[in-house]
Amino acid sequence: MDEQSYGPWTLESMASAIGHSLPRAVDIREVGPRDGLQLERKLTLDQKIRMIDGLVAAGVRRIEATSFVSPTAVPALADAPELAKELVRWPEVDFCVLVAGVGGAKRALAAGITHLEYVISASESHAKANAGKTMAESIEAGEQIIKMVHEAGGICEVIIAIAFDCPFEGPTPASRVADIVKALVKAGADRICLGDTIGTATPDRVIALVQAVRDQAPGHSIGLHLHNTRDTALANVLAALMLGVTDFDAAIGGLGGCPFAPGASGNLSTEDLTNFLEDMGIRTGLNTSALKQISAEVANFVGHDLSAAMTKVEPRIGFTYAANQNLVHTQH
Amino acid sequence: MDEQSYGPWTLESMASAIGHSLPRAVDIREVGPRDGLQLERKLTLDQKIRMIDGLVAAGVRRIEATSFVSPTAVPALADAPELAKELVRWPEVDFCVLVAGVGGAKRALAAGITHLEYVISASESHAKANAGKTMAESIEAGEQIIKMVHEAGGICEVIIAIAFDCPFEGPTPASRVADIVKALVKAGADRICLGDTIGTATPDRVIALVQAVRDQAPGHSIGLHLHNTRDTALANVLAALMLGVTDFDAAIGGLGGCPFAPGASGNLSTEDLTNFLEDMGIRTGLNTSALKQISAEVANFVGHDLSAAMTKVEPRIGFTYAANQNLVHTQH
Repeated sequence: MDEQSYGPWTLESMASAIGHSLPRAVDIREVGPRDGLQLERKLTLDQKIRMIDGLVAAGVRRIEATSFVSPTAVPALADAPELAKELVRWPEVDFCVLVAGVGGAKRALAAGITHLEYVISASESHAKANAGKTMAESIEAGEQIIKMVHEAGGICEVIIAIAFDCPFEGPTPASRVADIVKALVKAGADRICLGDTIGTATPDRVIALVQAVRDQAPGHSIGLHLHNTRDTALANVLAALMLGVTDFDAAIGGLGGCPFAPGASGNLSTEDLTNFLEDMGIRTGLNTSALKQISAEVANFVGHDLSAAMTKVEPRIGFTYAANQNLVHTQH
Repeated sequence: MDEQSYGPWTLESMASAIGHSLPRAVDIREVGPRDGLQLERKLTLDQKIRMIDGLVAAGVRRIEATSFVSPTAVPALADAPELAKELVRWPEVDFCVLVAGVGGAKRALAAGITHLEYVISASESHAKANAGKTMAESIEAGEQIIKMVHEAGGICEVIIAIAFDCPFEGPTPASRVADIVKALVKAGADRICLGDTIGTATPDRVIALVQAVRDQAPGHSIGLHLHNTRDTALANVLAALMLGVTDFDAAIGGLGGCPFAPGASGNLSTEDLTNFLEDMGIRTGLNTSALKQISAEVANFVGHDLSAAMTKVEPRIGFTYAANQNLVHTQH
């Protein structure tokens, strides 16, 4: 056995060996108030304000606050205009809202929101089911929305839903996702996020898709929106970290289960992601203990236990948070 | 942005870049009948036989069947001698049993078992709590057991408990684990397994420890026994795969929760690990659908839901098992 072949490798030197830098810090966007709550019983405006308050106290600085979509389709988020008025409470936070079409984008802008996130489906079946449009129409709508948002002085992110697999059609070709990204980057999209909407991604396909999309979006940050339905989310994060990805979505408690898979985990949970990264010395600015506190409150609001692993356990003994200097302490 | 720096990398070429080969196949040892059941209500012998039958039908060929430890301490496995007699039913399976001391090893050999797995703790506090011995005494016992097993014509594996963290002392120094491995490899240990007993490992420490131990055990297979308590197990598997590790423990359904963390996930689940690997084209010889069937039966035996993610969902649409040629089919 050749000693030479065994390192000593670290995650950092492994990333370097393939021409990337392991991030020293990542940017976690909290999507609990939108993706996490959309299928739950409707929370009161006060409960949503408390939820955001708790998240901000835990260090969260980027939040997907709500969506401007059909209130009939998503009654849990029908209070988007009212919540939008409250967001001035947290001037330190970068809030965005999700829209699926031009009408929603107009309403969001009218409500004073200037950071929009346009969701576009990467299959005809899902585009039709989710937004009632063809993919071509969806791209056109995206072009219009980007223009509108920029004219209003805002920024417009694009999130590609079912970027890995469609629940109706199966695997999504990476080339199709790359084509959508190319068209919307050309139209001025400020940021790109890849959605593993049904939690089917594995590290090999994360690596392939991130590279395919980067080729079409030079200079853009590529984020990942992962679900933990098949327990693969943190492995997917690890694969992405090796490629230098620094933007990840997560939802407090792992909120956001799929209605077609009762009991299945929803989004990658914020506390599990934070514990995972901080434990490896990758800074998040978030504090797991504070996240666990607001997670427990949110579990009461929605009326059921949440799926995050960290709801049941603590970070390892002797582990000290270096990330959040004003919250440094030892966990027991 | 330099196109050259973005690959196109694959998991395979990433492993190659650091001098390793991504495994094309891995060897999953099922530990459900031992680690998985030890804290559950006692199953009948017939239920245990049905459990093993179902696992074998799903393709499992390595099983940790039971332990020969104090029947008072672990009443759920007090039927070890009776179960040992039944193992001739499955001549295609490599069964091992766990022992924590010389007495247990003698009883296991007397029961006709020749593949033993000696568990040794990597901290004084845990060695005392788990086996009532100092670490030095534990190493001596290991040397004796290895000799006894070899004299009986058998093979003796060593599993290092709390190889990453001790629940009493915190982080376990990798050098201490390496020293234990060195001593027991010198004594003739046939195989080494690293136990993340309380589910605190993360990929950076998996990489460090695997390399540290390999240096002390040239030519030996290094296995990983991972718990999913903090949802990190599959990320740890990915890190180990990058170093060419091919031996992994798993328990059907994710059985094996810790009594000190009610509701926490236990062992890495066999069906989640199988789905993860097979989806990436890494062969396991196991079939996720068949695993899901026996997992559901075992949930009835133990009287509660199991934590594995795959108990609630199916492999992705359009995914075909190449691994098990007689079970090739498309999942829906």
